[in-house]
Amino acid sequence: MQFELTKEFIEDIIDAVEKEDRSFLIGNMKSLHPADIAEVLDIVNLHEAQFIYKLLDEEVASDVLIEIDEDTREKFLESFSTEEIAESLENMPSDDAADVIQELSESQQEEVLEAIKDEDQTSEITTLLNYEEDSAGGVMDLDFVAATWSWTVKKTLQNLREQVDNVGQVYTIYVVDDNKKLMGTLSLKRFLYASDETLIKDIFQDEPISVNVDEPAEKVASIMEKYDLVAIPVIDKNKVLLGRITIDDAVDVIKEEAEKDYQMASGISEKVESSDSIFVISRARLPWLLIGLLGGILGAYVIGIYEIEIDKFPIMASFIPLILAMGGNVGVQSSAIIVQSLANNSLDFDSIAKKLFKELLIALFNGLICALITLIFCYLTENNLKLSYTIGLSILAVFTYAGLFGTFVPLILNKYKIDPALATGPFITTTNDVIGLLIYFTIGGALYF
Amino acid sequence: MQFELTKEFIEDIIDAVEKEDRSFLIGNMKSLHPADIAEVLDIVNLHEAQFIYKLLDEEVASDVLIEIDEDTREKFLESFSTEEIAESLENMPSDDAADVIQELSESQQEEVLEAIKDEDQTSEITTLLNYEEDSAGGVMDLDFVAATWSWTVKKTLQNLREQVDNVGQVYTIYVVDDNKKLMGTLSLKRFLYASDETLIKDIFQDEPISVNVDEPAEKVASIMEKYDLVAIPVIDKNKVLLGRITIDDAVDVIKEEAEKDYQMASGISEKVESSDSIFVISRARLPWLLIGLLGGILGAYVIGIYEIEIDKFPIMASFIPLILAMGGNVGVQSSAIIVQSLANNSLDFDSIAKKLFKELLIALFNGLICALITLIFCYLTENNLKLSYTIGLSILAVFTYAGLFGTFVPLILNKYKIDPALATGPFITTTNDVIGLLIYFTIGGALYF
Repeated sequence: MQFELTKEFIEDIIDAVEKEDRSFLIGNMKSLHPADIAEVLDIVNLHEAQFIYKLLDEEVASDVLIEIDEDTREKFLESFSTEEIAESLENMPSDDAADVIQELSESQQEEVLEAIKDEDQTSEITTLLNYEEDSAGGVMDLDFVAATWSWTVKKTLQNLREQVDNVGQVYTIYVVDDNKKLMGTLSLKRFLYASDETLIKDIFQDEPISVNVDEPAEKVASIMEKYDLVAIPVIDKNKVLLGRITIDDAVDVIKEEAEKDYQMASGISEKVESSDSIFVISRARLPWLLIGLLGGILGAYVIGIYEIEIDKFPIMASFIPLILAMGGNVGVQSSAIIVQSLANNSLDFDSIAKKLFKELLIALFNGLICALITLIFCYLTENNLKLSYTIGLSILAVFTYAGLFGTFVPLILNKYKIDPALATGPFITTTNDVIGLLIYFTIGGALYF
Repeated sequence: MQFELTKEFIEDIIDAVEKEDRSFLIGNMKSLHPADIAEVLDIVNLHEAQFIYKLLDEEVASDVLIEIDEDTREKFLESFSTEEIAESLENMPSDDAADVIQELSESQQEEVLEAIKDEDQTSEITTLLNYEEDSAGGVMDLDFVAATWSWTVKKTLQNLREQVDNVGQVYTIYVVDDNKKLMGTLSLKRFLYASDETLIKDIFQDEPISVNVDEPAEKVASIMEKYDLVAIPVIDKNKVLLGRITIDDAVDVIKEEAEKDYQMASGISEKVESSDSIFVISRARLPWLLIGLLGGILGAYVIGIYEIEIDKFPIMASFIPLILAMGGNVGVQSSAIIVQSLANNSLDFDSIAKKLFKELLIALFNGLICALITLIFCYLTENNLKLSYTIGLSILAVFTYAGLFGTFVPLILNKYKIDPALATGPFITTTNDVIGLLIYFTIGGALYF
């Protein structure tokens, strides 16, 4: 059964570090999965984490180094010598080693690469470092199992025994021609059924789903998700098999994208976690606050124009929060639906005009309900028909504007290849605040003042 | 290579349906993956989709039926006879069949189950229907490959040949004792190396990571993600192996959770897609709008209390949008970070008090910057020191309140097992609007009026 981290366990561990009770710590860590050890190291402080890390077996230590938080790893690496880093990287799959080494400065990268004793590992890491971090090449690993199509089943089986030794997990056997060009895949089922002398070219499945090495990682993840794949082969422009991407890496991409969208919608401009430092979190939050500040100042300017009217009809000021809240909510709702559909590639081929028309109907439908409620409330409490019409009509107008704007902006951003998630949250809310006020006072000027 | 859906392709397909050009459609669909056919059927209209569906091979049709949108499937099933539904379900993996059958009314479910001719399939579906939809049991499939630990490698290989015939994809070979209790797993690597007469009990790995059949699906997905698993065995309370959950189903759970959180934060109360009907989308968006409306009306009431002061100092009204925008943004930011940490189980064991203190420092840091900017701006444009102090101090106070409230609410909701995603978005924004106004006018009363 998997391990459940408790506060008591952490306290025992911290206690053991304090008492330098090595045998307790070694015993406990032996019983844990590297991912669990990483979780422990992320929670305790740096000194405690390093004390425990030094007690781990070499191979386990490398696995843990891959799994811990980037922040913790950064601090760990700072305290390691070049040789220690090189040793850890030797024990890792080359794709993880390439990810870790990228966190070092360029001069340090070179030093570490030179210090790695296993030449194959150095050359694999160097190869992987050539690809963009968020492309298929940057996510793939080189640990696949391949059979040449001219081989017999018997020869393939012998060959596989050697290959699987170097591969973490075998999902699919890829079939290549004599020039390493990807031709297809071999299913375990057909392989187990075939007789020893059968040729691979007679039992493999052609037309494999594959991705080009330059494909964005996000696209790769959505292909794997769509076709329910656990691994996908990566090829170059000549169809030569270069590596494979496994589902665990794709899951990371999917989660990261979803979290980024969520944070952007919440006005947080870089990926942060609650455990990050106060300075990092503050910095991530400040940009949108400044945009909101600008919007608020613009709003003050708009209201300033109508100072005389507010002086005459101070009740107009009372409904400012209502108008702003409605515009903000409608804008965020409409843009969120579009952003999510774009992220899922689930948008149909309807034209932008058709989408705007649909949003118009939704905005009018909800707007009419909210406008009517407000109109009746306003008339009952203020007994002022002109004011009630002004508020009701403003709400309807703000709904329409905010809904259309919230739909339009992400679609346009997407058309020009800008991440539409930028559109939701504070940007839409801020713009809607200013425009909403203009609409409100314009209608007030026409009907009421 | 995978298929890229284009507008031209869809137009050709629609055209072919109109001309009843069956051979063109059959030829085109033969070259597509079921997931791609489903994508086509989701885009064309219902009549066209049904025309194409009837042309598909029985097995392909079942695969497509699993992949299409729930809405489209619902309409498809309505137009099918009980026998037609039963036939489709016979060709599906039993876990997919159980998912589809759950979309029917209870009386229809019974009719369909009776109409299925394959008794094994009926009993598997009935078994699966007993589990909660969002529990491990509701997500698992029954198509695993198992070896009894007293078998030899040779016997296992023979047995596997029979078993793999019924299983979509083999990821892991599970090892059970004579009572079907899960004992461990068998790695392909060790299996390939072992001699024919080796006993499974001598080469299997014990202590497998498994989940109980009642575990929530979300928990299962996060375990699979943490340990990078492609499949996880599901056991009952006696450790008897019941089924397995594969990574593609876990990915669906992960994506759905992330989307739900994002939609909740955007004030959309039920899962909708841009292709849903105007009525469905409007209904999902209305609840939060009504809450926003209530907040706006409360806000109007608060401002109404200070009508005389606004009459005297109309400039106070101008800065209402600024105060509201700042409170809303800070509240959403702070709650988003907490909600995301909770969703990732990446919260440390710091006490609530410690977290609030950290947020306090962040709020004060950003608040001071924004307050200073506003104070200077206000003094330069209005040349009124008292007003400038009022605005600046209000911003600082609102930052502090909104940051603490945004942190506190999701933590408390989580403590009482309520989904903290509820806390972000409109609820926090609405509450902050009302409290923000009270803070603003109270400070105004103390410093300015």
